[in-house]
Amino acid sequence: MLIDRLIEATKMRKSPIIVGLDPVYDKLPAEIRNRFPHNESEAFATFCIDVIDAVEGVCCIVKPQLAYFEALGSNGFAAYEEVVRYAKNKGMFVIADAKRGDIGSTSAAYAKAFFSHPTASADFLTVNPYLGSDCLSEFVKYVDASDKGVFILVKTSNPSSKELQDLKLESGNLVYQQMADMVEEMSQNRLGKYGYSNIGAVVGATHPEQLLELRKRMPSVPFLVPGYGAQGGTAEDVKKAFDAQMLGAWVNSSRGIIFAQEEGQTYRDAIRNAAMRMAKDIRSALEQPAQS
Amino acid sequence: MLIDRLIEATKMRKSPIIVGLDPVYDKLPAEIRNRFPHNESEAFATFCIDVIDAVEGVCCIVKPQLAYFEALGSNGFAAYEEVVRYAKNKGMFVIADAKRGDIGSTSAAYAKAFFSHPTASADFLTVNPYLGSDCLSEFVKYVDASDKGVFILVKTSNPSSKELQDLKLESGNLVYQQMADMVEEMSQNRLGKYGYSNIGAVVGATHPEQLLELRKRMPSVPFLVPGYGAQGGTAEDVKKAFDAQMLGAWVNSSRGIIFAQEEGQTYRDAIRNAAMRMAKDIRSALEQPAQS
Repeated sequence: MLIDRLIEATKMRKSPIIVGLDPVYDKLPAEIRNRFPHNESEAFATFCIDVIDAVEGVCCIVKPQLAYFEALGSNGFAAYEEVVRYAKNKGMFVIADAKRGDIGSTSAAYAKAFFSHPTASADFLTVNPYLGSDCLSEFVKYVDASDKGVFILVKTSNPSSKELQDLKLESGNLVYQQMADMVEEMSQNRLGKYGYSNIGAVVGATHPEQLLELRKRMPSVPFLVPGYGAQGGTAEDVKKAFDAQMLGAWVNSSRGIIFAQEEGQTYRDAIRNAAMRMAKDIRSALEQPAQS
Repeated sequence: MLIDRLIEATKMRKSPIIVGLDPVYDKLPAEIRNRFPHNESEAFATFCIDVIDAVEGVCCIVKPQLAYFEALGSNGFAAYEEVVRYAKNKGMFVIADAKRGDIGSTSAAYAKAFFSHPTASADFLTVNPYLGSDCLSEFVKYVDASDKGVFILVKTSNPSSKELQDLKLESGNLVYQQMADMVEEMSQNRLGKYGYSNIGAVVGATHPEQLLELRKRMPSVPFLVPGYGAQGGTAEDVKKAFDAQMLGAWVNSSRGIIFAQEEGQTYRDAIRNAAMRMAKDIRSALEQPAQS
């Protein structure tokens, strides 16, 4: 089962980190830009493949963000496919960060796009819950039939996430709590051997109290935790997303790793060092006794 | 201003309809499938271009649904681009139905993808509000700087839309009403000469009472109304989305038009007739005195 394999790969490397692939042409290493001055999509693919090589052994998951690839149109989408193929051939897990969601028949087409691609299928897809369960169930079909996984947006890392997600309901719950209960319910009857399912939630590192609360509220749900590093979340913050066995959460950093190069370093070394630093930072926090 | 030009084009044709381009290979006319037995994306582009030709003069907006194109990967995305280019060259308006939404910097990349494509920029993009205003504002930047438009999901047409969108808040509002107020507020200071802005809302035809309620609640917001036809909405239902001048709403049909072919008809005739029938159906409803 996908989540079991992911947990085992993570334990082996002691590194619950995700490297986010959010390429932006102007921020690419000069060396890459000089090689591809007129072909941004080729530059993206080359750079992301270099990132994958650089972080090999340090992390087992990469998360291409579709928006950055789609910003280059169909050539960018082809670069995304190339990156997914490369990562999968390396034995890495791939989260397609696309935050899709539509009515049932349309969500089925998105599920096909990301889970049933002939050469570049992702393992996980991020999904937006605004349309409710008939949208989500089209993705969950692939969870059940093809051992794929989803991370459903519950509480996102951006400042304005509170505008909708923190609205208080008549029932006393906040909107994100209601979403959390729905996700936990979907997860409950799909558990693998570590007590987690392939149905995950996105919970931002920028809301540490809510990480703690949501960890308790969704005990069987794996967490994708964005917001570490560039967005402000610390290792002490993200620690709250993990269970007592220090499992159940994967922490993403994108810009903080892939654009870590400074004067006098190769970009490959800078990326590898940044990933190792992040893994060590989180490992250290996890190994310390919990603060009360 | 985009919305003014759209209103004028709609008045001229007396046809507030949108033809949704949701290609599915197995449902394409046999003639197309026989021409492209091994190239689904070429079949999609050819078919959609034929649809655009067939509905010329009957409607002024097409709405490619990205999911169906992305289901074919980068080749499908290239077919989407070809279709947009063709529609724009014909002088039609294009709504990219992609329901995107992410944190600010990522939404900026999606906005670039759909609004700033070098050869295939859409006029409107559908946007998901789950992440709140720092997500939406990246799209609205293009509304202000480049005269583009958005349709923000408020109340979608699918059965399970009620699960999140109809939750009752402590304030007494339902979630979709709160979203509606936010959209109306964004729209208010961006009005064109007909009293509408380029900031629209998606409100499903499958909820007629809510169409009426939301028309009053968002008086300056243009409506994209999905759910007519295949999903069950009638002309009498969608009438409630229009204002007293019979403006302010555009009604989409996808499958009901593009897959209208029956035994003994060419698909082009079938598509054109289906679009004319729909336009007439809605025009007739609009011309009748309002039922109390």
